[in-house]
Amino acid sequence: MDIVIPLFERFTALDAIGPYEVLARLPGARVRFAAERPGPVRTDTGGLSVVAEVGLAEVERADVIVVPGGPGSRELVGDAGLVGWVRRLHPGTTWTTSVCTGSLVLGAAGLLDGLEATTHWGAVALLESFGARYRPERYVVQGRIITAAGVSAGIDMALHLAGELAGRPVAEAIQLGIEYDPQPPFDRGSVAKADPATVALVSRLRELRTSA
Amino acid sequence: MDIVIPLFERFTALDAIGPYEVLARLPGARVRFAAERPGPVRTDTGGLSVVAEVGLAEVERADVIVVPGGPGSRELVGDAGLVGWVRRLHPGTTWTTSVCTGSLVLGAAGLLDGLEATTHWGAVALLESFGARYRPERYVVQGRIITAAGVSAGIDMALHLAGELAGRPVAEAIQLGIEYDPQPPFDRGSVAKADPATVALVSRLRELRTSA
Repeated sequence: MDIVIPLFERFTALDAIGPYEVLARLPGARVRFAAERPGPVRTDTGGLSVVAEVGLAEVERADVIVVPGGPGSRELVGDAGLVGWVRRLHPGTTWTTSVCTGSLVLGAAGLLDGLEATTHWGAVALLESFGARYRPERYVVQGRIITAAGVSAGIDMALHLAGELAGRPVAEAIQLGIEYDPQPPFDRGSVAKADPATVALVSRLRELRTSA
Repeated sequence: MDIVIPLFERFTALDAIGPYEVLARLPGARVRFAAERPGPVRTDTGGLSVVAEVGLAEVERADVIVVPGGPGSRELVGDAGLVGWVRRLHPGTTWTTSVCTGSLVLGAAGLLDGLEATTHWGAVALLESFGARYRPERYVVQGRIITAAGVSAGIDMALHLAGELAGRPVAEAIQLGIEYDPQPPFDRGSVAKADPATVALVSRLRELRTSA
């Protein structure tokens, strides 16, 4: 089983590594990171690079695609790069999936038109500009397309996907292997649970990072 | 604020990237990956390398240390490598922390003797061999040492730590920023919630990966 996670400059690390950690534990799965050019790819936070093993052009098919999000995803348009790659590979995949604003890449590839989908809560209008209807859920399954909500939601989505690919007992063993029994110390993980001050502070923190 | 995440061959990616994603969003924080030698460091699953920006020898102090776990952590002993580095830097840190079997490195450095601590559920006996008393919690705070449980628990621990370092409003904004409102599709994330067949399957999956 060939699973490919495409990377691009300024992707969000956890969007990619959360699902990776789950899917790499599937028996018989090969999970590879691909990018425009093989080599280190910078994340959105600057201090971290993840190595892409292969170039996108070398990957002509995959059973599963997981497109992460991040600020860089908003600049991916047109057929030349990742958007075109997703459009070309999608007809041959078993599952085409995204995490966070990775959904915008699926949208730009024309895959979400008329479908329900999710994304990071800060990118709802952009998602809907591609003809999708936003649903505020951890992940949304539409046929063989799955979109996950922001960043950490990729772990929940990947466990669901692991169940689809290898059966529930294996998926549960993977959950136990990564000891995924989450107990966040706070309860502000969605817009529905946050007040306006917290929402505003998210933007302020992002500006501080961008200007740093 | 200087935060350092030391890497070693066969670390577990999510152990490091979960806390990274949280802590890199702290205003004024610099988060760096360090390793014996700068450059790509292989994870335990083979297909993924993360780039260490600096060598351990170049890092003589840090405000916060986060030691990830992984199969490679069990081979780190003696003063020459990471264990000695942790022992030397710990007196100058504000917080010394670990995720998963990263606790074994803290233990080998002599930091956990007589303390309560946690680790991956599969490494309890090893943890206790360093004089620690295991507590089956997401993270355990003892003075300025925090140990987190397996793999994904590093996210919960890092949010707690973000609250300590920058105050609860900032930590809550980070939680919202990464949309961390976890809803795992299954409920087998701890040994207390798993049956013996699931526990056995975790070992079997690990053997399959090791022999691949």
